[in-house]
Amino acid sequence: MTDTAYDVAGIGNAIVDIIARCDEAFLSNHGMEKGFMQLIDAKQADDLYGHIGTAVEQSGGSAANSCAGIASFGGSCAFIGRVAGDPFGKIFAHDIRAIGVEYDTPASNAGLPTARCLVLVTPDGERTMNTFLGASTQLGPGDVDGELIASAKVTYLEGYLFDKPEAKAAFHRAAKLARAAGRKVALTLSDAFCVDRHREDFLSLVRGGVDILFANETEITSLYRMENFDDAAGAVRAECEIAVLTRSEAGAVIVSGNDTIKVPATPVEKVEDATGAGDLYAAGFLHGLTSGQSLETCGKLGALAASEVISHIGARPEVSLKELARANGLLG
Amino acid sequence: MTDTAYDVAGIGNAIVDIIARCDEAFLSNHGMEKGFMQLIDAKQADDLYGHIGTAVEQSGGSAANSCAGIASFGGSCAFIGRVAGDPFGKIFAHDIRAIGVEYDTPASNAGLPTARCLVLVTPDGERTMNTFLGASTQLGPGDVDGELIASAKVTYLEGYLFDKPEAKAAFHRAAKLARAAGRKVALTLSDAFCVDRHREDFLSLVRGGVDILFANETEITSLYRMENFDDAAGAVRAECEIAVLTRSEAGAVIVSGNDTIKVPATPVEKVEDATGAGDLYAAGFLHGLTSGQSLETCGKLGALAASEVISHIGARPEVSLKELARANGLLG
Repeated sequence: MTDTAYDVAGIGNAIVDIIARCDEAFLSNHGMEKGFMQLIDAKQADDLYGHIGTAVEQSGGSAANSCAGIASFGGSCAFIGRVAGDPFGKIFAHDIRAIGVEYDTPASNAGLPTARCLVLVTPDGERTMNTFLGASTQLGPGDVDGELIASAKVTYLEGYLFDKPEAKAAFHRAAKLARAAGRKVALTLSDAFCVDRHREDFLSLVRGGVDILFANETEITSLYRMENFDDAAGAVRAECEIAVLTRSEAGAVIVSGNDTIKVPATPVEKVEDATGAGDLYAAGFLHGLTSGQSLETCGKLGALAASEVISHIGARPEVSLKELARANGLLG
Repeated sequence: MTDTAYDVAGIGNAIVDIIARCDEAFLSNHGMEKGFMQLIDAKQADDLYGHIGTAVEQSGGSAANSCAGIASFGGSCAFIGRVAGDPFGKIFAHDIRAIGVEYDTPASNAGLPTARCLVLVTPDGERTMNTFLGASTQLGPGDVDGELIASAKVTYLEGYLFDKPEAKAAFHRAAKLARAAGRKVALTLSDAFCVDRHREDFLSLVRGGVDILFANETEITSLYRMENFDDAAGAVRAECEIAVLTRSEAGAVIVSGNDTIKVPATPVEKVEDATGAGDLYAAGFLHGLTSGQSLETCGKLGALAASEVISHIGARPEVSLKELARANGLLG
């Protein structure tokens, strides 16, 4: 195995979030399932934007948020994902580079605008997402830099990539290259409806080529079509080297071989906006893992990063996670 | 005098803020005067954007922020200002309409992009602004709707409009129309350097046609070239019906005829971002004034609105100011 240039190479949809507050009735009036992500087309995105209140725009995207978190912890990270050469694309590229992530995917010029996600935050802090994938669907296998993947300790993939064929092919190529180079492959299941759309694909991946799996409770029970969390945790134990199962304020369960490690959630005063909680949990965990920490410390780093991101609007950390970890007695 | 359709008609630059945190050294390394606003051109804006960290985009603009605040208090408000037909222009128009402000100025198609302001927030919460005026300079006297101005109790103008000749002409036309209709004219001095650039114009306006003047300490002392705040307050007393002089955490002094009313600042736990403090002070004050409150209550409403906006990132209110006022025993 050659030297590693990166701790983590992340591949995902390159998205700018448009974040607005709304009440519960707004979600039901617009046919949204609270807490989940649905895909919308350009016209639906424009229509919905006309109905939401005052918004804030901020870079997002699941794996991209995780990469931003890893960089904020001081880890070395690269991101692969497609934007267009429009203002939102420039915002996305600026923000991910500004936090220290290597990002070199060329912007698309095929006409589709940069992806955007209309994130609606209810008074309880829960977020409900409506994503127009736009240019991010134009990521293809040719955009996956084999040398980069081979030089990263972990290649981290988001399940959302499965929603479009080209991006899915890029996903498979990256996983294959990582395995061929003797590296680890990590996957987040992203969303229970996304799992529902691609269950068989995800199951065969988990059985065949994923070393580290991230999922929340609804995702892991959806994957195995089980009603009970413990049953699903038992099922994944037999199939994955490490499964990191998050349960919001109930904390996380890390399942690995015969070990079961429970890590409580880091308490927060108020959940302002849950956007990015899972992404930042993965960031903390992967940073811990790639810097040689115990699984328990990895879980604590994940919980800490998630607690930071849910205490403010937006899915990217607002403080240095490296300093936050030190202030909390982690990472020395 | 005919019936009024609006409490306030605001005219100003239509700007989207790009807000990032930075340390004190960043400001001095880039030749910025902390706490002030400087004008930059398109190239400088691009260069500076390449050096700032992760940012958040949010609608801004001084008078536009005040209009958003007035609408959030439940007041009726219209805004006049120019954007381009680009994504930032769409964001600006969406946000100001979504909060309930009437906004009908047609987008410019003359090539300049929507104005943007790079707002840098230091750890003490102070903001330093770098504005590329872009399409907002293409506001001209023809954009000032005479019927609208005549139907508003107060026409509110930002001093920043003086930085470009066409916008300045729009400013003068609006003030003239308001006076002709027997309405009040309010002006905010905007920034001490802006006052410095246009001192004689501002002085003749204050002497000839401004009923309500908003200024902070550095602005009012700059206007009269006086070192002492009390001297400047004495000077403006003789020239303006109402002068609202804000002094950050030291509160505000309202000077009107023989009256001097001191209103303390509403305490906040931590100043997260001072952007919009003056704009929201003006919003609260003008809402009070146009709904028949005493000057003291007007000042308290201003202090309350300012305290809300400095306790989070961004220059627009995040909660209903109407409900906040009620919860604080104001506006019944």
